[in-house]
Amino acid sequence: MHELKDLAGVLGLMSWDQETYLPSKAGPARAAQLATLQGLYHQRLVAPEVGDWLERAERVELDAETRAMLKVFRRERDHSVRVPESLVRALAEAQSTGLETWREARTARDFARFAPALQRLLELRREQADAIGHGGERYDALLDHFEPEMTTARLLPVLERLRASLVPLVDALDGALGGPEIFDGRSFDAERQWQFTLELLELLGFDLHAGRQDRSIHPFTGGTHPTDVRLTTRIDPVNPSPALFGTLHEFGHGLYEQGFAAAHHRTPLAAAPSMGLHESQSRLWENLVGRSLPFWEFLYPRLRSSFPEALAGVELEDFHRAINRVRRSPIRVEADEITYNLHIVLRTALEVRLLRDELRVTDLPEAWNSEMERTVGLRPRDDVEGVLQDIHWAHGEFGYFPTYALGNLYAASLMRTAERALPVLWDEVTRGEFGALRAWLGQHIHRHGAWGSAEERVQAVTGHGLTDTDFLAYLRSKYGALSGRALPTDPHR
Amino acid sequence: MHELKDLAGVLGLMSWDQETYLPSKAGPARAAQLATLQGLYHQRLVAPEVGDWLERAERVELDAETRAMLKVFRRERDHSVRVPESLVRALAEAQSTGLETWREARTARDFARFAPALQRLLELRREQADAIGHGGERYDALLDHFEPEMTTARLLPVLERLRASLVPLVDALDGALGGPEIFDGRSFDAERQWQFTLELLELLGFDLHAGRQDRSIHPFTGGTHPTDVRLTTRIDPVNPSPALFGTLHEFGHGLYEQGFAAAHHRTPLAAAPSMGLHESQSRLWENLVGRSLPFWEFLYPRLRSSFPEALAGVELEDFHRAINRVRRSPIRVEADEITYNLHIVLRTALEVRLLRDELRVTDLPEAWNSEMERTVGLRPRDDVEGVLQDIHWAHGEFGYFPTYALGNLYAASLMRTAERALPVLWDEVTRGEFGALRAWLGQHIHRHGAWGSAEERVQAVTGHGLTDTDFLAYLRSKYGALSGRALPTDPHR
Repeated sequence: MHELKDLAGVLGLMSWDQETYLPSKAGPARAAQLATLQGLYHQRLVAPEVGDWLERAERVELDAETRAMLKVFRRERDHSVRVPESLVRALAEAQSTGLETWREARTARDFARFAPALQRLLELRREQADAIGHGGERYDALLDHFEPEMTTARLLPVLERLRASLVPLVDALDGALGGPEIFDGRSFDAERQWQFTLELLELLGFDLHAGRQDRSIHPFTGGTHPTDVRLTTRIDPVNPSPALFGTLHEFGHGLYEQGFAAAHHRTPLAAAPSMGLHESQSRLWENLVGRSLPFWEFLYPRLRSSFPEALAGVELEDFHRAINRVRRSPIRVEADEITYNLHIVLRTALEVRLLRDELRVTDLPEAWNSEMERTVGLRPRDDVEGVLQDIHWAHGEFGYFPTYALGNLYAASLMRTAERALPVLWDEVTRGEFGALRAWLGQHIHRHGAWGSAEERVQAVTGHGLTDTDFLAYLRSKYGALSGRALPTDPHR
Repeated sequence: MHELKDLAGVLGLMSWDQETYLPSKAGPARAAQLATLQGLYHQRLVAPEVGDWLERAERVELDAETRAMLKVFRRERDHSVRVPESLVRALAEAQSTGLETWREARTARDFARFAPALQRLLELRREQADAIGHGGERYDALLDHFEPEMTTARLLPVLERLRASLVPLVDALDGALGGPEIFDGRSFDAERQWQFTLELLELLGFDLHAGRQDRSIHPFTGGTHPTDVRLTTRIDPVNPSPALFGTLHEFGHGLYEQGFAAAHHRTPLAAAPSMGLHESQSRLWENLVGRSLPFWEFLYPRLRSSFPEALAGVELEDFHRAINRVRRSPIRVEADEITYNLHIVLRTALEVRLLRDELRVTDLPEAWNSEMERTVGLRPRDDVEGVLQDIHWAHGEFGYFPTYALGNLYAASLMRTAERALPVLWDEVTRGEFGALRAWLGQHIHRHGAWGSAEERVQAVTGHGLTDTDFLAYLRSKYGALSGRALPTDPHR
């Protein structure tokens, strides 16, 4: 397990490097190096003697922690053992073709060019789901990779309720928050933005001796070990939002990674139990803390003194409104905190129908567009603004999207519990202090790593499992205050 | 071979990262990752089936290129197979103790604290030399690791001749080049130095799309592949020499690495045949080009416009003299182009006597000091200025030092041949153009990689093997002009 964790760390370094510092001509060399390392990782993982050790260990009386460790290891190994190498290779090829034709289709603004590759990816994913095993719902096997122990049957009703609750909220709030436009082309010096994000990380409590921040086109959190957690951010010279909220988001991921118990380092437990719980940490800092008024009461004077010209005449309330504006958009990554979830709901519903063969690939663009109209309330102008907007399906990644919404729901439930446990929380935030919240998350979430499922952990901390109650209460309270309006009654209450 | 080369590239990335960007707390995690990767590399290299493949391949009729490839692979594998794992582990431990006690001894300014660890390292290196095999001279087996096919019997007379020739030159030139002191504490802005080195790399013709430059405390050339060559440099804010000559030096190494034939990438031939030939490339650019008057005729106006205050009143000739000043120093890394070699001569002589058991470790400081007096003409004030100055022996690295001198000798011979082949060479340099020299080195040295030994390659290009003739001619001509003096006759001519 140590050896595999070390190899995974090295693969993390290679990926981080590829997104940050790799010279442009070195792409093919790095691809070969990655393939070699991934091959070695796979060989060690599925080696028959490793299977023997695991079986012998599972027959022994062991403490709960070690059993949890073996369970995580067993899950990863079973997935790898069950999927034949020929399928792994076919998938890698199909992903490469998928990515290529997706790019071509975007350039041509024509989904049809991407359709055959997507069809192939779907067929291979169905094959993979059957190889892994499931109880009749193929999507479960794929979902399990990103959100272990979550099922389609448990997930879909939660998302459908969410749709029913959020659509009227968006109707009520779209365009309802006034205030001036701020991010309208005025200049925010890139170097000053960069310095500001580094100071922000320090303020939030990211350990820059056990991690670092660099720049990349697509921000992410990676690294090699809990003492080597690497965040990236993106600077837009006319808009500080990507840098500010990107840093807050990746900080949430990074704090989680730095917080795994030292005793679990180099074991399968030094990981989040699911992508959804990982995302809950990033969303908690990006949205629940990072778009709150108390947070900006502290930080806005600093931001303003960093960008005195651009923010001249922009008051705290203007800024707070600008970063919380609700506005229908066809694009997921540009969506506000409410609409975002509707983008996820519709993607998940389409994924499930595709995997069940209830929806044909050729019918996907039309299904996307009418779902978008029904859910978000607008129709994309073309496929680039519609079904071709995200890279996930070009990689054949099905089952990933819902973890974004799960993260939002878990984040709200955790924050609500933290608020009750820590009466000082918001006073501290108003003073630019985050120690209490950080310690609480560390104790209740981070140090547990992959011990237990995401929902078990949330249940243990909050007293209930997956629910939209806390998220909806948070949204209604926040946007009620921001808009000064009475929001429509929730259809489910 | 592809797989091993990929792994070596990944190990290169990990080492580069350790010296540039690794967070300070991640040291232990990186050590574990390195040990795991090195272990995997070793296992794959010595795997019995690899031995079978190699033997079968060697029995087949093959083209010369493939035979050369197998020869390099065979050498590396034999070294690894012959040295038992217990010895590898003992060496790693002794190196760790060596480094630690060397640091303590330096702090205490007392060699005695380092002596037991050095004794242990010596014993293990003797054991290693016996395991690898030799014809009675253990130093040969160690030398072979850094300078394949070089022998002690071939090397020592060359170095002794060099001593005899250089001592009178240093006597004549020490303090003989006048001109003002420049690097006396005036300020050279660090960021401007950094920008200058990047522009210098571009000017020299380093492909920054197939490589990069970063900063590190100890500059080096590393990377993962000929399309991913990574240089580092060090900036001293009161002296631009480390940055300028460090960049020139590492550029020489880097150009070599970028120049390996594409057909050899991911094979053992994508490497220099020896450290000496690698060093010849760095010294050629650092000294033979980089400390020449034509080079600075072009570059000095640019340097001056980058640092107008610091270089006010400093004329080209002053600068050229300052970077070529001959001055006895007890410290190797501070030595001028002539004295430097005497530092190597004395270290190599001591290493050979230590390996032969002709010199006891406890007698080493006194041997060092009297050799220093005889060769360089001064006595160190203490062991820190003397026998404890270099890190190499703390690692138990014996056989590495002579490659520095070999690099100087090979560089001069290659440059002399290039000058004859390229009448435009110095005209181009005066115009800041290096295309002809770069192409010539690429064709005659770089693209051959590890095909043939270093001396065979030099012989093929220059018509003769290892010699001090060209180096001495170069020094006499350069320093005759610089000092305006008649230099003493060479004792060997």
